[in-house]
Amino acid sequence: MGSWKLTIAYDGARFAGWARQPGLRTVQEELERAVGRILGGVDVELTVAGRTDAGVHATGQVASFATEVEPPDHFAERINAVLPRDVAVRAAEPAPPGFDARRWARSRRYAYRVLAAPIRDPFEEGRALWVARALDQDALRECAGALRGEHDFTAFTPTRTEHTRFRRVIKDAEWEREDERVLVFRIEADAFMRNMIRVLVGTMLEVASGRRSVAEFRALLEGAPRAQAGETAPAHGLFFTGVTFGDGPLQIDYAAEA
Amino acid sequence: MGSWKLTIAYDGARFAGWARQPGLRTVQEELERAVGRILGGVDVELTVAGRTDAGVHATGQVASFATEVEPPDHFAERINAVLPRDVAVRAAEPAPPGFDARRWARSRRYAYRVLAAPIRDPFEEGRALWVARALDQDALRECAGALRGEHDFTAFTPTRTEHTRFRRVIKDAEWEREDERVLVFRIEADAFMRNMIRVLVGTMLEVASGRRSVAEFRALLEGAPRAQAGETAPAHGLFFTGVTFGDGPLQIDYAAEA
Repeated sequence: MGSWKLTIAYDGARFAGWARQPGLRTVQEELERAVGRILGGVDVELTVAGRTDAGVHATGQVASFATEVEPPDHFAERINAVLPRDVAVRAAEPAPPGFDARRWARSRRYAYRVLAAPIRDPFEEGRALWVARALDQDALRECAGALRGEHDFTAFTPTRTEHTRFRRVIKDAEWEREDERVLVFRIEADAFMRNMIRVLVGTMLEVASGRRSVAEFRALLEGAPRAQAGETAPAHGLFFTGVTFGDGPLQIDYAAEA
Repeated sequence: MGSWKLTIAYDGARFAGWARQPGLRTVQEELERAVGRILGGVDVELTVAGRTDAGVHATGQVASFATEVEPPDHFAERINAVLPRDVAVRAAEPAPPGFDARRWARSRRYAYRVLAAPIRDPFEEGRALWVARALDQDALRECAGALRGEHDFTAFTPTRTEHTRFRRVIKDAEWEREDERVLVFRIEADAFMRNMIRVLVGTMLEVASGRRSVAEFRALLEGAPRAQAGETAPAHGLFFTGVTFGDGPLQIDYAAEA
């Protein structure tokens, strides 16, 4: 019985998210079908580090599976040859016994891209949120600074929720420039709640537009109700960029969703 | 009567090229309709610097038109508001009397992007030619060096042609790295013939794969027949990136096509 680790990239535009859903096109289903086919027709069940929502992209997603079949040489290339063009396996590697991309994950990294420019860009369509109004970048940086550490993010996930714990530890959060026009919010945490990064970004953009103060943003981080935070930024600016793993499973299993 | 200069970007994937064609979706038609609408319902006829083929992209295309109507403030933003998402006017500026984006152009610049990596990338889909085999980058650079200056490019355009002159002056040509995985061929010339850059790229990639020598490539540049050059690289790697204009019309009117 071998454990395998797949590093995966996908353009989320035409997917109903990661997780299998009857009748919908999902990344999990496309990958499980492709991997099973390359292994000679076996059933494969993938476990994923970040269960992304519809429209969310990934450059460094990680999934794991166990199989008794020995994969062929050039495993990743062979999987890619039967995958659709909007998803690719970047690497397929043997993993330690029992490896589980969800339970072994210690932190997850996401990026949210904002095209901050008066004119939209056809090549950023579906890959960045276009914001034409002026953004106060100092305010964005102050918000990111306020995020670091442990907080109660109740305000940043829908009221109806499957989550039972609302505290999360933000290991790093920053706004940086990708180039003259694109601002990127990067965040790393043990785990995220559903929509958490998108509500954080939507709220920070309200601060950067002068509609809220940084102090008001800071006050939301200690268990304020959802209604006090801002809009949910659209999925198409969000990218799952990477995972850091430990040497075994975590005791607390956060269902990581974004 | 005012002359106007539009700088334009478009993702060519869903366009049948720049030039109007009955029953097909073209950049020219979308733009003429949008500009005419913003000017209050007049007919607008655009003249373009680079008449790109189906699937070819642009980041710095330039088109011109004349109108007796005074455009509104925020002209570019207003045009963009009624354009589809895969095309945008980056700038709309008043131009000197008689300005003609085709006849005043002195040189045109294109880029061809190659994803040179063993694994494909969903985010480069439709924006770079993926080449998994190893490429000899020194050979590519030697080919680019051989291109500079005046040559007869008969071998690099279809045999059935509307062109009557086959000599072109290459002002600059180089292969450079965009990042670890993407190679970019940049070329600037007075004008290009139909498919010229795509056949050049297709042929250079054969040199870089060891299927031709640099000397063989060089020998094609003095009027060899089309059959001796290589494959036409696909349209989706090609970008029209910019134009340099003079102070008036050129005497020789090359029909610039790529």
